[in-house]
Amino acid sequence: MKRNKINNKVAIIMGSKSDYRVMHDCEKILRTLKVKFETKIVSAHRTPKRLYEFASSVDKKGFAVVVSGAGGAAHLSGMVASIASSTTIIGVPIKSKKSGLDGLDACLATLMMPPGVPVGCVAIDGAFNAGLLAASIIGIVDPKVKSNLEKWKRLQTNSVKKKPK
Amino acid sequence: MKRNKINNKVAIIMGSKSDYRVMHDCEKILRTLKVKFETKIVSAHRTPKRLYEFASSVDKKGFAVVVSGAGGAAHLSGMVASIASSTTIIGVPIKSKKSGLDGLDACLATLMMPPGVPVGCVAIDGAFNAGLLAASIIGIVDPKVKSNLEKWKRLQTNSVKKKPK
Amino acid sequence: MKRNKINNKVAIIMGSKSDYRVMHDCEKILRTLKVKFETKIVSAHRTPKRLYEFASSVDKKGFAVVVSGAGGAAHLSGMVASIASSTTIIGVPIKSKKSGLDGLDACLATLMMPPGVPVGCVAIDGAFNAGLLAASIIGIVDPKVKSNLEKWKRLQTNSVKKKPK
Amino acid sequence: MKRNKINNKVAIIMGSKSDYRVMHDCEKILRTLKVKFETKIVSAHRTPKRLYEFASSVDKKGFAVVVSGAGGAAHLSGMVASIASSTTIIGVPIKSKKSGLDGLDACLATLMMPPGVPVGCVAIDGAFNAGLLAASIIGIVDPKVKSNLEKWKRLQTNSVKKKPK
Amino acid sequence: MKRNKINNKVAIIMGSKSDYRVMHDCEKILRTLKVKFETKIVSAHRTPKRLYEFASSVDKKGFAVVVSGAGGAAHLSGMVASIASSTTIIGVPIKSKKSGLDGLDACLATLMMPPGVPVGCVAIDGAFNAGLLAASIIGIVDPKVKSNLEKWKRLQTNSVKKKPK
Amino acid sequence: MKRNKINNKVAIIMGSKSDYRVMHDCEKILRTLKVKFETKIVSAHRTPKRLYEFASSVDKKGFAVVVSGAGGAAHLSGMVASIASSTTIIGVPIKSKKSGLDGLDACLATLMMPPGVPVGCVAIDGAFNAGLLAASIIGIVDPKVKSNLEKWKRLQTNSVKKKPK
Amino acid sequence: MKRNKINNKVAIIMGSKSDYRVMHDCEKILRTLKVKFETKIVSAHRTPKRLYEFASSVDKKGFAVVVSGAGGAAHLSGMVASIASSTTIIGVPIKSKKSGLDGLDACLATLMMPPGVPVGCVAIDGAFNAGLLAASIIGIVDPKVKSNLEKWKRLQTNSVKKKPK
Amino acid sequence: MKRNKINNKVAIIMGSKSDYRVMHDCEKILRTLKVKFETKIVSAHRTPKRLYEFASSVDKKGFAVVVSGAGGAAHLSGMVASIASSTTIIGVPIKSKKSGLDGLDACLATLMMPPGVPVGCVAIDGAFNAGLLAASIIGIVDPKVKSNLEKWKRLQTNSVKKKPK
Repeated sequence: MKRNKINNKVAIIMGSKSDYRVMHDCEKILRTLKVKFETKIVSAHRTPKRLYEFASSVDKKGFAVVVSGAGGAAHLSGMVASIASSTTIIGVPIKSKKSGLDGLDACLATLMMPPGVPVGCVAIDGAFNAGLLAASIIGIVDPKVKSNLEKWKRLQTNSVKKKPK
Repeated sequence: MKRNKINNKVAIIMGSKSDYRVMHDCEKILRTLKVKFETKIVSAHRTPKRLYEFASSVDKKGFAVVVSGAGGAAHLSGMVASIASSTTIIGVPIKSKKSGLDGLDACLATLMMPPGVPVGCVAIDGAFNAGLLAASIIGIVDPKVKSNLEKWKRLQTNSVKKKPK
Repeated sequence: MKRNKINNKVAIIMGSKSDYRVMHDCEKILRTLKVKFETKIVSAHRTPKRLYEFASSVDKKGFAVVVSGAGGAAHLSGMVASIASSTTIIGVPIKSKKSGLDGLDACLATLMMPPGVPVGCVAIDGAFNAGLLAASIIGIVDPKVKSNLEKWKRLQTNSVKKKPK
Repeated sequence: MKRNKINNKVAIIMGSKSDYRVMHDCEKILRTLKVKFETKIVSAHRTPKRLYEFASSVDKKGFAVVVSGAGGAAHLSGMVASIASSTTIIGVPIKSKKSGLDGLDACLATLMMPPGVPVGCVAIDGAFNAGLLAASIIGIVDPKVKSNLEKWKRLQTNSVKKKPK
Repeated sequence: MKRNKINNKVAIIMGSKSDYRVMHDCEKILRTLKVKFETKIVSAHRTPKRLYEFASSVDKKGFAVVVSGAGGAAHLSGMVASIASSTTIIGVPIKSKKSGLDGLDACLATLMMPPGVPVGCVAIDGAFNAGLLAASIIGIVDPKVKSNLEKWKRLQTNSVKKKPK
Repeated sequence: MKRNKINNKVAIIMGSKSDYRVMHDCEKILRTLKVKFETKIVSAHRTPKRLYEFASSVDKKGFAVVVSGAGGAAHLSGMVASIASSTTIIGVPIKSKKSGLDGLDACLATLMMPPGVPVGCVAIDGAFNAGLLAASIIGIVDPKVKSNLEKWKRLQTNSVKKKPK
Repeated sequence: MKRNKINNKVAIIMGSKSDYRVMHDCEKILRTLKVKFETKIVSAHRTPKRLYEFASSVDKKGFAVVVSGAGGAAHLSGMVASIASSTTIIGVPIKSKKSGLDGLDACLATLMMPPGVPVGCVAIDGAFNAGLLAASIIGIVDPKVKSNLEKWKRLQTNSVKKKPK
Repeated sequence: MKRNKINNKVAIIMGSKSDYRVMHDCEKILRTLKVKFETKIVSAHRTPKRLYEFASSVDKKGFAVVVSGAGGAAHLSGMVASIASSTTIIGVPIKSKKSGLDGLDACLATLMMPPGVPVGCVAIDGAFNAGLLAASIIGIVDPKVKSNLEKWKRLQTNSVKKKPK
């Protein structure tokens, strides 16, 4: 195996444009940590063909991780996990403004995958942590990203004040 | 339009063999009401290609209704609804024995579909009612089925005793 | 059976005037797809006689589908299903502003029907999908509606942008 | 008004024979307290006509209180409350063995009635307390029942041991 | 028993002044129906002695029904039911603005009473229905109230429009 | 203040004999740690007078902590907290076998106390931890108990194997 | 044991500065009751070392009670309970504005501790009651605090009006 | 960077021996896919020092991924994520037999991590999928594991029968 063939990019996908309000937190932290990424709208429900094409070529295109955000009956993450050959899928359940169930619906629909088709789920609207998780994975093959992540974490720790006022 | 080209069959699909314990209730009532049906295993998560092929040809094959049962992060019904061109999808959330959430996960994952991709959801493990619902739909084009359904309903009413003992 | 006797209209009913804020989404999509419909207020709790009269004559009046929306302890859909002889009932659980349970109460009261009396339930406040579901049913007997639905769905797919910004 | 025209009987109804396993607790305590009652199966979903006939004549037949038990999407109590002219309705949400939601569905479907149509709901499977509540109501007009209830309550208090072993 | 000794008043109690925003709905409908009532603040948690004194004398003071509203860990209704000798208790679970659980906490704390100590619970914030329920009980002994309730109900039915706009 | 007047006993109370199956875990750990305790049945709902007498004299009798267990609409802990002058109350929500809500009802009824009347709630059926919590409180005034608790905790840590098999 | 070595201070800690909006209620009541306290930010997730240092020295520094507030997957209270040798931990689940689950997540993450590691949990956002609970514990060793608490409680009782308006 | 310094092992940890009943599913699939792993008991609550030592050295010891299973107020996964410098943490919420909340408590305590400290959560008792997710991550640096995973997935797809009987 040649080193430069190792997948080290992150794909960020989301079910609709309105999810970008949450998902751009993922872009922000990936940018900070200098992780390569591409962002796309792929809707499991409204663009099923685009979903198939995306998910079945995700490995060939050099993506090591897919961060996928969707709300309501959130099928996107699980369907990418189903179709992709061996890529790591991180699911972000998004609280939709309309459905009154506070994101619990998206959470369970992302999380409760059957044995054989794994999704690593983060907190409701947790796109920032999805980015960090993706960075920790990319960090395995990219020492620069790993070191950026470690630095970022130390800064975070140092930024916590000792007194609330 | 010629009369004999009208779709009047029901497809029953389920995510795994173990779901048949619930889904055969649907077969039973369809058989009673003399509705034509075919039963298949189609897993959104483990056989995504079979799902695409099934869902994109379901109309051509003469199915007017798909009754689809799945548990956990139940994506099957919604994905068939996404891919099929115009067929009516009835979803049956199945309470899986392992997941401890009493079928609420399957229920929300089947029910909370976004605007544009409808699934008609029945009660948890409600395959029997899914069959009746399918029959009521087929009854629109098949007077024999409609009349069978009406008879069945009268019998049901008459079978209710007046006293509990 | 004569072709022109086939039921092909949709009845939209709701428990109170305030539910119209949600239910007019159903009217909109039915109008778009050129499905015939009539809209009425029928309250299971405040007008039980009107409910009986409506539900027991719904088939004779040429309705193939009833879309029924109600909130709280939402009994309307289930009671129409109980009284109507063989019509397809689609229930829309409506999140009431007062009850704090986010529509979960209406959802369970619409969904968890006992074996023998089916309701096809859509998402909380999902009147738009209820209309689409009704159209897919009417489409079985009305090729024009079917073709409108298929066109609408292709447009929906095409309207999904590739990038979130 | 003549004294002997005052309603002082309790009607116990339930959605199906299988609910009797819970509802006979109500019979037991009413018998103990010497409250007159009659028991019937009335299904909102399977015998809607019987429901209408029962509920619209319940006052004329001398019933002051209806205790009504049902499970799942429990519509029985609310529909009796809707149809009856002025009788007091006590609802018993019954945990059905099949539905996995632990009776929460029946509970919300019984409890969350809209303003204008009241049901007094007791605990899940709380038929015993429904009987006591009915007795406290009958006790208003029947001093013998009132005194029986007071005695029963004192006995209950006295029966509570001081030590757990 | 002499007729004029029959209890026919309703006591409205609530855990704190802030609950009056909900509980005055009960006063309104009782006033409309000409039911006698008195309103008091009795806090199970902050005024336990007042609770004991109130509940143990409620029968002697001529109250036939207590309507009791409380939020959070709502103990008021159950404790009145525990202490009162034989009076009918109707509990109103109140959604508190602070606790985020949408009134579900108050609902379960009011509803899930153990066998032997009954409370008839209405919907969350359902003080209006608690008043109607109280009126239906008082109506058993007061034909004027009964007739007022029947009239009110007919008016309610007649006020429901046929069209949503 | 004289040292020997400091309260250092724990009262264990429970709503009914059947709760002892859970509450004897509390006795066991208190015995192990040599904390003095007394155990009683005090039912908020069936013995309200005993509750008042117990709670209003609990301080005088030398109890520093009350551990109180109850199920369903669990009012016991909150009512003791309401009546007692300044004693620390630890509540144990007990999962009742009958109520299907898995102890969530008892949990919310114990936990969600209004500002002013505190209960420290442990996990559902968490009588063992309630005992440990009581011991940590008694340990403040009794160095022997404190040292026993510290030893017990070290033993617990040491007992955790490194490998699962 | 010498009297002046008895721990009698309260430590208030919280996971982040934003939790102070809730936790200062604890400071307020402790100040009113003249209980000594110190307040700190200690984040289980962002400052794990600070957590260890704080929790392992909490007893030596003279704290008898730790009141600890955190939201979301609230691990702070349980981890302090795990590390501290024998101090009493009171957990305050904080409803975070972002997570849509109304504080239920923080509540379960604080409450459902395994046997051996107790946390006494108060209501969601219940920092005021956590302060009262801490005061009742300190009151065991400090008669002045005990008497302040008793006075405060009587004032609270007296402040409850009899009429809602 | 030298190739052989890349972390490629998986650590499996769990809160107690009894969790092994669930976690050995993870071992099984890792063994099948020829992923190197080590298994340990590390309890956040009973062995906090072991937790700190484990988590702070996990990167140096060559682990790329930690799969961590715990039940109840499941703090293990989040605390490892807090302490470890940059390792990927996959959390498995375990349904404990005692706590009646069906694993929802463990699920929320694992999932709802605050921004800055990510855990990738799988389904309740989803140790098998945690193993697959770990393998997909290891597969980024180990082409043999990647190819094993792809083969395993094809076999899984092929094993799905077409008919339920």
